[in-house]
Amino acid sequence: MTDTTASTGTRTESDTMGRLEVDASRYWGAQTERSIHNFPIGRDTFVWGRPVIRALGILKKGAAQANAELGELPTDIADLIVKAADEVIAGKLDDHFPLVVFQTGSGTQSNMNANEVISNRAIQLAGGEMGSKAPVHPNDHVNRGQSSNDTFPTAMHIAVVLELRERLYGSVQKLRDTLHAKSEEYAGIVKVGRTHLQDATPITLGQEIGGWVAQLDFALGEVKHTEAGLYDLAIGGTAVGTGLNAHPKFGDLAAKKYEAETGVPFRSAENKFAALSAHDALVQTSAALRTLSGALMKMANDVRWLASGPRNGIGEIVIPENEPGSSIMPGKVNPTQSEAMTMVATRVFGNDATVAFAGSQGNFQLNVFKPVMVHAVLESVRLISDACLAFNDNCAAGIEPNLEKIGHNLSVNLMQVTALNKHIGYDKAAAIAKKAHKEGSSMKEAALSLGYVTEEEFARWVVPLDMTHS
Amino acid sequence: MTDTTASTGTRTESDTMGRLEVDASRYWGAQTERSIHNFPIGRDTFVWGRPVIRALGILKKGAAQANAELGELPTDIADLIVKAADEVIAGKLDDHFPLVVFQTGSGTQSNMNANEVISNRAIQLAGGEMGSKAPVHPNDHVNRGQSSNDTFPTAMHIAVVLELRERLYGSVQKLRDTLHAKSEEYAGIVKVGRTHLQDATPITLGQEIGGWVAQLDFALGEVKHTEAGLYDLAIGGTAVGTGLNAHPKFGDLAAKKYEAETGVPFRSAENKFAALSAHDALVQTSAALRTLSGALMKMANDVRWLASGPRNGIGEIVIPENEPGSSIMPGKVNPTQSEAMTMVATRVFGNDATVAFAGSQGNFQLNVFKPVMVHAVLESVRLISDACLAFNDNCAAGIEPNLEKIGHNLSVNLMQVTALNKHIGYDKAAAIAKKAHKEGSSMKEAALSLGYVTEEEFARWVVPLDMTHS
Amino acid sequence: MTDTTASTGTRTESDTMGRLEVDASRYWGAQTERSIHNFPIGRDTFVWGRPVIRALGILKKGAAQANAELGELPTDIADLIVKAADEVIAGKLDDHFPLVVFQTGSGTQSNMNANEVISNRAIQLAGGEMGSKAPVHPNDHVNRGQSSNDTFPTAMHIAVVLELRERLYGSVQKLRDTLHAKSEEYAGIVKVGRTHLQDATPITLGQEIGGWVAQLDFALGEVKHTEAGLYDLAIGGTAVGTGLNAHPKFGDLAAKKYEAETGVPFRSAENKFAALSAHDALVQTSAALRTLSGALMKMANDVRWLASGPRNGIGEIVIPENEPGSSIMPGKVNPTQSEAMTMVATRVFGNDATVAFAGSQGNFQLNVFKPVMVHAVLESVRLISDACLAFNDNCAAGIEPNLEKIGHNLSVNLMQVTALNKHIGYDKAAAIAKKAHKEGSSMKEAALSLGYVTEEEFARWVVPLDMTHS
Amino acid sequence: MTDTTASTGTRTESDTMGRLEVDASRYWGAQTERSIHNFPIGRDTFVWGRPVIRALGILKKGAAQANAELGELPTDIADLIVKAADEVIAGKLDDHFPLVVFQTGSGTQSNMNANEVISNRAIQLAGGEMGSKAPVHPNDHVNRGQSSNDTFPTAMHIAVVLELRERLYGSVQKLRDTLHAKSEEYAGIVKVGRTHLQDATPITLGQEIGGWVAQLDFALGEVKHTEAGLYDLAIGGTAVGTGLNAHPKFGDLAAKKYEAETGVPFRSAENKFAALSAHDALVQTSAALRTLSGALMKMANDVRWLASGPRNGIGEIVIPENEPGSSIMPGKVNPTQSEAMTMVATRVFGNDATVAFAGSQGNFQLNVFKPVMVHAVLESVRLISDACLAFNDNCAAGIEPNLEKIGHNLSVNLMQVTALNKHIGYDKAAAIAKKAHKEGSSMKEAALSLGYVTEEEFARWVVPLDMTHS
Repeated sequence: MTDTTASTGTRTESDTMGRLEVDASRYWGAQTERSIHNFPIGRDTFVWGRPVIRALGILKKGAAQANAELGELPTDIADLIVKAADEVIAGKLDDHFPLVVFQTGSGTQSNMNANEVISNRAIQLAGGEMGSKAPVHPNDHVNRGQSSNDTFPTAMHIAVVLELRERLYGSVQKLRDTLHAKSEEYAGIVKVGRTHLQDATPITLGQEIGGWVAQLDFALGEVKHTEAGLYDLAIGGTAVGTGLNAHPKFGDLAAKKYEAETGVPFRSAENKFAALSAHDALVQTSAALRTLSGALMKMANDVRWLASGPRNGIGEIVIPENEPGSSIMPGKVNPTQSEAMTMVATRVFGNDATVAFAGSQGNFQLNVFKPVMVHAVLESVRLISDACLAFNDNCAAGIEPNLEKIGHNLSVNLMQVTALNKHIGYDKAAAIAKKAHKEGSSMKEAALSLGYVTEEEFARWVVPLDMTHS
Repeated sequence: MTDTTASTGTRTESDTMGRLEVDASRYWGAQTERSIHNFPIGRDTFVWGRPVIRALGILKKGAAQANAELGELPTDIADLIVKAADEVIAGKLDDHFPLVVFQTGSGTQSNMNANEVISNRAIQLAGGEMGSKAPVHPNDHVNRGQSSNDTFPTAMHIAVVLELRERLYGSVQKLRDTLHAKSEEYAGIVKVGRTHLQDATPITLGQEIGGWVAQLDFALGEVKHTEAGLYDLAIGGTAVGTGLNAHPKFGDLAAKKYEAETGVPFRSAENKFAALSAHDALVQTSAALRTLSGALMKMANDVRWLASGPRNGIGEIVIPENEPGSSIMPGKVNPTQSEAMTMVATRVFGNDATVAFAGSQGNFQLNVFKPVMVHAVLESVRLISDACLAFNDNCAAGIEPNLEKIGHNLSVNLMQVTALNKHIGYDKAAAIAKKAHKEGSSMKEAALSLGYVTEEEFARWVVPLDMTHS
Repeated sequence: MTDTTASTGTRTESDTMGRLEVDASRYWGAQTERSIHNFPIGRDTFVWGRPVIRALGILKKGAAQANAELGELPTDIADLIVKAADEVIAGKLDDHFPLVVFQTGSGTQSNMNANEVISNRAIQLAGGEMGSKAPVHPNDHVNRGQSSNDTFPTAMHIAVVLELRERLYGSVQKLRDTLHAKSEEYAGIVKVGRTHLQDATPITLGQEIGGWVAQLDFALGEVKHTEAGLYDLAIGGTAVGTGLNAHPKFGDLAAKKYEAETGVPFRSAENKFAALSAHDALVQTSAALRTLSGALMKMANDVRWLASGPRNGIGEIVIPENEPGSSIMPGKVNPTQSEAMTMVATRVFGNDATVAFAGSQGNFQLNVFKPVMVHAVLESVRLISDACLAFNDNCAAGIEPNLEKIGHNLSVNLMQVTALNKHIGYDKAAAIAKKAHKEGSSMKEAALSLGYVTEEEFARWVVPLDMTHS
Repeated sequence: MTDTTASTGTRTESDTMGRLEVDASRYWGAQTERSIHNFPIGRDTFVWGRPVIRALGILKKGAAQANAELGELPTDIADLIVKAADEVIAGKLDDHFPLVVFQTGSGTQSNMNANEVISNRAIQLAGGEMGSKAPVHPNDHVNRGQSSNDTFPTAMHIAVVLELRERLYGSVQKLRDTLHAKSEEYAGIVKVGRTHLQDATPITLGQEIGGWVAQLDFALGEVKHTEAGLYDLAIGGTAVGTGLNAHPKFGDLAAKKYEAETGVPFRSAENKFAALSAHDALVQTSAALRTLSGALMKMANDVRWLASGPRNGIGEIVIPENEPGSSIMPGKVNPTQSEAMTMVATRVFGNDATVAFAGSQGNFQLNVFKPVMVHAVLESVRLISDACLAFNDNCAAGIEPNLEKIGHNLSVNLMQVTALNKHIGYDKAAAIAKKAHKEGSSMKEAALSLGYVTEEEFARWVVPLDMTHS
């Protein structure tokens, strides 16, 4: 967190528990200040980042607009809140959101952080005295018709959908498109297939890469599918899901405002009790991200195995040299992007374990694992996105076939004997393969030697490219 | 496995590795026999059950029909295969499927088990000699146009979709409907809400139960969504995804046969390379089952907490007494169905961890964790289904409100003070609650004593039922 | 479950809830019968097996002996209980334990199942009337001084320690010893090392295998370490940990009896409250089994990669052909034991996720996830044990080096250039490797061509065997 | 990362791949610079923190000392390295370690980062030109006798052991000691026990809290046990485990230097092949941290349930009010420290899933998931430590019994009937409990009414404190 404002003493802030001093250069109030002291947990790396802060801004802006439209807030107050919230959205007030993930499990303190910052900034805009709660009160105005219990999960959904749309989809798609282009470019390169790590019948390099593309398409589609669950917002449920103290139309109208702000078809959740006490939609998003990372892991593993060597491995593709591979072994180039990608996958798996565990632990009208859930999902989104871009730029885009190695491997491959099954039967085909394997000979030599096929038949029946059905 | 046929010596069977003796009362052949000896792993509990055996029968029947229609198999051979496969489907030959989950990772040996059993049973039906492979050869005929690599994942999808449709949906729906009826029945019962395990504003018992229903609806919908991925079958891909040795129309036509047999809109997967080397659709199903079990866990936890007592707990609902609760404490009735349900949830979470891990470990053209994946998913389906039925019949259907306790709890609850927020402001409302809490008095007493409201206002503003917005 | 006794009508049994009919051929009573009906969950595969039934027998035998010695039970009653319990221990009454894992979370019903079976069998031995509870009462006598809450976790520990000792250790050790012998046998075979899947400096095959042995030694040691936590038994804590209704010396004396019966230094846990409400020792055992399975996965993966080929892979070792590899590709031999082993690993990981999740969910004086925890741990023990034996017999024992391939790979390997680092410096060594890589030449050719070393120096400095420091 | 030095243009650095420009204010060299560009993954939160940077400093210092002592480095070069490394250890050069976790899976680039920074700082200390690699070369001198493959895992172990010792043990012990003091303070407070969430026989509050203490003692002991595995260092193994290019005594001597620096009995691992290709000791540490977090979760859950209310829950303890609980419900105090603690637990579970998954994925002579493993373990250590301190200071230290509620609950509790079992038998005791339960009467009333005991007997036999056996 970069500190852009020098401290100039303190200011007195208060809440229902009493008064306390806050750094005068900060917009936050008493409840935020208390949280800083009460939750010094993982402070280095668990302070909320842009996505959640921005979502809190969007949340408060839309709520003020909806309340004003419903006559629940004076227009001038609402306008001040909107202005301050717009600054939160734009990232101008990030330094005023100092709280960490591990706080109250409803995110109450981050909701209050938003209320306090927006209140004080709005007061400042109005020429008032910060901390005075007038003319803009953090609870009565900024939090009007809201409770942490419905606002924080609303912000969670907004933050995740926007990150998916603005960060994840494009990054994964970019890698997918690169691989798809490679799969088309290499559609004519015939190579050995491998099953059980054993030599198998031929495929094209395009088909091999195309399998990865199909996995990414499916997994990305599944992530996108989970958006639908995230459109359902808790807003309007207030403390327990009944909407007590909120205008009956508040939830629906606020959701409309969020749609207007973001372009995402958010809506007020039909069942607010579930929306507060469970986050199953988020669990589903996390699970789909896990599936996506599993697909990426398979791809990255294939890439590194296909690039293994240079002389003692498979070596059928060449990947870019981005750095000296080893501090001791000169000339060695390691599949470092695959390594970063697969490490990311293990992290995403772990994050998902956290999310699913936390998601199961709701009681009665509230699940109090909200912050750790949204944090883990956002981390997964960020890591997958970053890793896809890095992998794309520094590895995938540069994948080239090693035609010499591919050709050599294909020429010694025995499994093309399978092409003979339908001509001479399984048992004779097996005998040919066994003989060649035993004698170290080629399949053709063994086939002719056993007299099961003529040379002409062999040439006609055993055509690697035909076997790929590409 | 009940053995219905007495052994009558042995029969010689053979495969490409040679001959060996098989119990004459069994239809299986050499490869199945070898697998029994090579994989004595978890034999007590990991022998395949009905869902997978039946799916193998469906698989082989449809394949024979498709091959016959395409001219790849003589009609009489296909008819024999269909007859034998129908017996497999009907469960008449379950004793002839002795293999366990932990075998070849492609399920090759279970595919061969099906080939061998159907071949020998077809031979028997034709009056031939078992083990002779004539007139129905296990590989050349029963496995025609197929490889384990495309058949086993096809059987996996068929087995899982049928179990979802025939077992899971109805069971979960039954419990959901019971709870939904309870939520409507108890729509008028006002009670305290709870957030952070702390007293909160009122809700109705119907709303509380309705939150569980909403979770089940969402989670069940997500499970159903994953069916779409399972419709895509690997069939037609043969060994590496290219479809080598299969008729070009085989995959599509076989899928049609499976649809005809099951009513499920199966189709030949567009990308067979992904279909063999990844099982992301199954991972997604597993994840949705995990979400469902998380929702069930939340519900079961709420039930047992609400039923806690009889005198030292919350006690707002009463659940059926199904058994003496304790061997030492007479009179105690435990929430045993909740305990079984939440144990099932932890098992489903574990199964899902297995599935996701296994799903990430494919290499090149094959993922060799197929058996462990489908087994874990089927186990989760079975356990959730059984547990929902048991919970429904032995607990949910008998849930009754404890009106006395509900009324008492509501009468002493302080949080209805929230209803005053919009009338007298947050700070005064807080003062009332604090005073009552400190003095052990009722909220009304404190409110009047502080002079913030009149008795008439209190009666008009603080109406629990109104606060539920139900 | 083989049924060895024909049913001969029913017998009336009773408990505190009333009477009901039980199959007259069975020893169980009313509470067991109720549980059968109330928990039809996963019945096919989740009925308790030998380890838990035997442990329940040991539990009840030792408890009777201790009670008799303390004057809490008449000697003749105790003797009858011991006789019946001995039959349970010996496996003669397994058919009388029909309950499944998913029942009451304290295992109450399985504890009562043991009480009822032993009571009725003892009554029968005494010539009494089954169901009469005289002269041996299931609660007052067999369960004397006990509660499910302390007996079931006691049986859990007994079952797990015995399975570890009698099944796991020997199986893992057998595989470890085979590998150790191989590592010594192949201590002189120099081959290429691989890091990042890339060619690296030489090692011996013995060293490579020795790395696996070291992992197994460590992981097995860690499993054994966790035994210490399992020695602490809950026995003597009765219902909540206070030992109410048990003789003050009962716990210690019963533990002595268990030690006498099993040879395991069991002891009465110092803190019974933790012993009932948490199963952290079991979580630790599960975790160590996970580490062990992770080590086995690494080994099994190395084996299959080293055996990959026959012509398009690494192929440095040869593994036994145990079965025809593919139903379509004759001649192909797959690393099926590695596949079974790695599938077992994913299952053990899942089981461990279940155990740790369940272990965290205790409340107040009881954790009610006992059955699912012990079941998962026992399943992991069984699967690892079985898989190690299968892998040992069918794979490890038959691993042979492919000297031709090893020699070829070593001869073309470039990374031996590292040996030159200390003689000519890192940068020149790197230049040699790069030149050879670029030109496809040997390292020696490149080195001489660059003039960085003489032929004599090269021969003296680059000696693969020396580089292994073996 | 606070930037303490203003940038002053660039400096040319080089490695085996060529030259590139580096910010002149930074000590790092070409390989670090490349990594910044190649791995822009999770940059906000995944830059290495103090523990790993410090460990790299310790690593390089000890290596230089050992090399000097063995005659492998000139003393003056070694002295310069030691001086620079001391600055790294002291935290003076943290700004010069810009790399993130998701990089090469061997940690190569962070090893080179340390080599480059120490080299350039040493050059600067010697008055040389940074980037010139003279007189102190990053590879030939700072990395002398080392490879990333042995240095990074060595740094991993050093970092984790020091964090355990300096951060975790004290924090957990502090909380444990607070709870232990509470358990002694409240040893005389008799209250109801609860099993299955149901009323059970009495315990003391001291016993209840003592159960938590016992869990923490066990789990902390298990974490400490895993230190032994971490003492084994990879140092001396160089690239593949053979120790190529290192002095034969280097590993042992370096380990001695680390012991001297840290007081931890580090040693050179007996089997270096396992030390590079597996991190099972770290997996075990992670697992023990998971067990510890499970114990903390149970404790934190008990605390919040016991504190539930104020009027509609259990309410037997009172916890400190640290902040206003809700933005809408005045007067409500939430168990926020329990919420933070249990969220931490779910995160630690997720981290552990990452570590175990990653730990299973080694191939041949290297596991390339090193960075993600050590990062997750260190994060778990940090979070548990911070959460224990926060929980201790802001919750545990202030836990007070609510004597009124405890007394009331005990007075209405029925389960003390169990005390009668041994006097009047199980069935009559059950009848008393049932009658009281049905009639809403006290246990004593029911007992006398049934005539099973006299008033005097009841008074003598049913004594709550006696029942606690405390």
